[in-house]
Amino acid sequence: MLSFGFCERFCKTLRDNRKTIKFVLIGTTVSGVGYVAYREFYPSEVEAVTDRKKVVVLGTGWAATSFMKNLDSPKYEVQVVSPRNYFAFTPLLPSVTCGTVEARSIVEPVRNIFRKKRVDVQFSEAECFKIDAENKKVYCKSNANNNLNGQEEFVVDYDYLIIGVGAKVNTFNTPGVVENCHFLKEVEDAQKIRRTVIDCFERANLPDVSEEEKKRILHFAIVGGGPTGVEFAASLHDFVNEDLVHLYPGVKDLVKITLLEAGDHILSMFDKRITAFAEDKFQRDGIDVKTGSMVVKVDGKEISTKELKNGGKITTIPYGMAVWSTGIGTRPFIKDFMAQIGQASRRALATDEWLRVEGCNNVYALGDCATINQRKVMEDIASIFKKADKGNSGTLTVKEFQEVMDDICVRYPQVELYLKNKQMHNIADLLKEAKGDVEKESIKLNIEELKTALSKVDSQMKFLPATAQVASQQGTYLAKCFNRMEECEEKPEGPLRFRGEGRHRFKPFRYQHLGQFAPLGGEKTAAQLPGDWVSIGHSSQWLWYSVYASKQVSWRTRALVVSDWGRRFIFGRDSSRI
Amino acid sequence: MLSFGFCERFCKTLRDNRKTIKFVLIGTTVSGVGYVAYREFYPSEVEAVTDRKKVVVLGTGWAATSFMKNLDSPKYEVQVVSPRNYFAFTPLLPSVTCGTVEARSIVEPVRNIFRKKRVDVQFSEAECFKIDAENKKVYCKSNANNNLNGQEEFVVDYDYLIIGVGAKVNTFNTPGVVENCHFLKEVEDAQKIRRTVIDCFERANLPDVSEEEKKRILHFAIVGGGPTGVEFAASLHDFVNEDLVHLYPGVKDLVKITLLEAGDHILSMFDKRITAFAEDKFQRDGIDVKTGSMVVKVDGKEISTKELKNGGKITTIPYGMAVWSTGIGTRPFIKDFMAQIGQASRRALATDEWLRVEGCNNVYALGDCATINQRKVMEDIASIFKKADKGNSGTLTVKEFQEVMDDICVRYPQVELYLKNKQMHNIADLLKEAKGDVEKESIKLNIEELKTALSKVDSQMKFLPATAQVASQQGTYLAKCFNRMEECEEKPEGPLRFRGEGRHRFKPFRYQHLGQFAPLGGEKTAAQLPGDWVSIGHSSQWLWYSVYASKQVSWRTRALVVSDWGRRFIFGRDSSRI
Repeated sequence: MLSFGFCERFCKTLRDNRKTIKFVLIGTTVSGVGYVAYREFYPSEVEAVTDRKKVVVLGTGWAATSFMKNLDSPKYEVQVVSPRNYFAFTPLLPSVTCGTVEARSIVEPVRNIFRKKRVDVQFSEAECFKIDAENKKVYCKSNANNNLNGQEEFVVDYDYLIIGVGAKVNTFNTPGVVENCHFLKEVEDAQKIRRTVIDCFERANLPDVSEEEKKRILHFAIVGGGPTGVEFAASLHDFVNEDLVHLYPGVKDLVKITLLEAGDHILSMFDKRITAFAEDKFQRDGIDVKTGSMVVKVDGKEISTKELKNGGKITTIPYGMAVWSTGIGTRPFIKDFMAQIGQASRRALATDEWLRVEGCNNVYALGDCATINQRKVMEDIASIFKKADKGNSGTLTVKEFQEVMDDICVRYPQVELYLKNKQMHNIADLLKEAKGDVEKESIKLNIEELKTALSKVDSQMKFLPATAQVASQQGTYLAKCFNRMEECEEKPEGPLRFRGEGRHRFKPFRYQHLGQFAPLGGEKTAAQLPGDWVSIGHSSQWLWYSVYASKQVSWRTRALVVSDWGRRFIFGRDSSRI
Repeated sequence: MLSFGFCERFCKTLRDNRKTIKFVLIGTTVSGVGYVAYREFYPSEVEAVTDRKKVVVLGTGWAATSFMKNLDSPKYEVQVVSPRNYFAFTPLLPSVTCGTVEARSIVEPVRNIFRKKRVDVQFSEAECFKIDAENKKVYCKSNANNNLNGQEEFVVDYDYLIIGVGAKVNTFNTPGVVENCHFLKEVEDAQKIRRTVIDCFERANLPDVSEEEKKRILHFAIVGGGPTGVEFAASLHDFVNEDLVHLYPGVKDLVKITLLEAGDHILSMFDKRITAFAEDKFQRDGIDVKTGSMVVKVDGKEISTKELKNGGKITTIPYGMAVWSTGIGTRPFIKDFMAQIGQASRRALATDEWLRVEGCNNVYALGDCATINQRKVMEDIASIFKKADKGNSGTLTVKEFQEVMDDICVRYPQVELYLKNKQMHNIADLLKEAKGDVEKESIKLNIEELKTALSKVDSQMKFLPATAQVASQQGTYLAKCFNRMEECEEKPEGPLRFRGEGRHRFKPFRYQHLGQFAPLGGEKTAAQLPGDWVSIGHSSQWLWYSVYASKQVSWRTRALVVSDWGRRFIFGRDSSRI
């Protein structure tokens, strides 16, 4: 009792007291017992700053959360609005669908994340349904999915608005998809898929179900051969073959998993070696990969596909459960907002390289709901020429050009990429190529010749993928800009403004690709790391475990995820239908 | 990679192979690291027995599962039908409502439980909707709550039917309860309560909500002062005060928990010391206990109560969330069945002391859906007299009566209780009392005198409470009867049949009360153990932890529950709304 009382008080102290050093020993079991010790300082109370600017953040996904985590200037008063009061580690969603990891292990309440900050943050569990950029107001209503009667509506004013609401599923208007398919965007989706897999097995096990009907019910169709679809197919295959076959021995031979992909290959964004390995492994595992197969209709029991390789023939496939994991679309209130600011024709909110939404002030957008509208060099060529030609001589020397070259490379990242691709070390090489084979030092170009030299540079512009990595980096970048807003106002650190005067306050956002994983089941993962380094197999799976454990947002979720992996190794996955 | 491959194969072997000795080391962390080693023999394949009897079991709760766990005769072919494909450790449901324990930690798939048996068991996830006892058929349809289209219907024949479907909530026809109250019977109920608690806090934290409305939303009303209601109130209080106050500092002073009880005291089935302690502790904790308060109506925002202590005055209380935890009722298809077999007027399925449903053959009922209709001694007094009076002399000697006394005590447990209460050691004392003060050996009674002697015995008959403990013991008892059916047919081991010839096959079911817990929050629990032993405080809480850990149905749930407790100590409870 004494020891208990101490333990209780000790734990209470750990949780409650700010300014307390937290020592927590967590022993977890993953083929052995490891331990992690961590200290965490609770920072001091929010400093009293007068005249704080009000920042409204929409969303609690990767972008918004990483912005919040990195914002540490007490000069802002922040209000976060999101229908989810937690951050979800979405890359583990496919694991949740099969119970390898529990849903609750990958979520962390945002209030827990904000609580440790010295910034004044308020959170409202609500959905934004209208943005009024002219009057700097956001219209919100309380979460529609909750268990309470009625909905509260309220309006929030802002000085700065950060939009990080992510995307919704894009069904490309395919009939029947919304009604009959499962998606894999939210934690609730993953939980529902898990229940439905069990439903299929239970239904197929009822007496009086015909063999044909059993086959239909146990046919799992996955639409989309991207990383999510592939990972889900692999997880499902493992779940069935490692766990469910023992519990449902009567139907194990009737299970079928089909992956439908409209393109020629699955995992097309990965290296060809990975694609080939994945297709090969899936074939060995008995997962039916149908490429060139475009879904045109889904009804209650059948999927209709157009076989692109087969002259567009329409075929129908009976299925038990269908998961739609392709395409991202714009949320309705973002569409309205886009129409308001003259972006009606676009697919996502267009921002400049500083993540500022084009067409309005003090509004930023990041993550899946936004796309960076990179400036083309050719559009600004006259301004660039003018800026570089200091003497207004009408011609540029290499030396003059080299003086602005660093700014050009920062402002227009495609230039650097182009040089790298051409294996040129210096801008002079480019100019030389345009001008012909003369001595470097004496090169002089007029504006037309500069246009010729840079004409192909813009072909290197790349859209950023809609990944957690991009969103997270954007959030961090924006928070750092906000933290140093005043400082950089006085001492701008960005590149030259070619079309205006002076310099940009900040360097533009630059995405740094850290690599990508594609778990393929059977404890094998494909990893594509920067520098075209490709690794496939068990070792990559361990790399995957370490990266995903280390990237967790809190020590709590880290401990839970690791112990879930351990539990799965020891006891297998749970198949209770809850 | 080598070590991984080994580990993977080792784990796979553990899970897959029958006839394999399983050694699993589980290290879990509860303020230290403990380890559990266990071996489990997978028994040999189901033996081939011809002419097996078909046993249909309805339900996967305490009664049905403990029946299944203990049935080990290969002479039966078993089909289990239940809408839940898992067994849930219901005493931990109040812990699930607040996230002290996760829902998945207290459930175990029934297929996992059956898989290890040498009995041929089939499971169907379906609901029974009709029993036809005359033709020995059960009508079922597939689980209505699943994510698949349509419902399958099927009919199952049986030789023996075991009904263990539990009870449904009884609202006593109070208007608005079904629409507005939460219940606490199923795992899903507990999960929904957890989400709703968070909903209330989030809603109260929205801007523009008036102080009065905040108070309403954060008023949690619990109807029913039984063990479940009290434990939930205590858990909620801990959740709010240990975790939520730190995340929702703005509203912490507005939270109110009210426990409404129609009777004079909460926990009325417990010892008075426990009731007094609980009421006192709740008062100190700020939980408002309203006794003599009967709920007569619940609408969307208010509960109307009749104040029994206050002349039946009707008062209304605004509330945010209401939990109804009082009363159990009969499931509709059981009601239909009762009408069929002439039990329409009863509250639950009446069985005899051998758990056989009265009015039909080969149907057994146990757990919350059944009640044992104990025979009264006075109803059988003539038969008893006749059986005991071997010489048909018309009078009974003490010796003659003592010869049948053991059988009487087994057949009519109230006799033993009555003697114990009267502090009599022997039946002779009872007869002596009836006859007057003469020498024991010479006592002779006629039938009227025997009636006088035993007239008050039946007052000791007790109904069994609707608890997991009773259901579990009934399941075990019935399984043991089934295991020895043939053996006992030949050599009956039960008491004399007073109204018939020979002996009963089995001894009747006898409930052994092992004690009861009432967790009161703040790591304090009240325990009432047999022999009126009462213990309240931290030590009982540890007893509670040990008993609940040891009673888990599998090593998996045991490890999960214990690690959940550990996680709660270290990280607190999660407040993500999923």
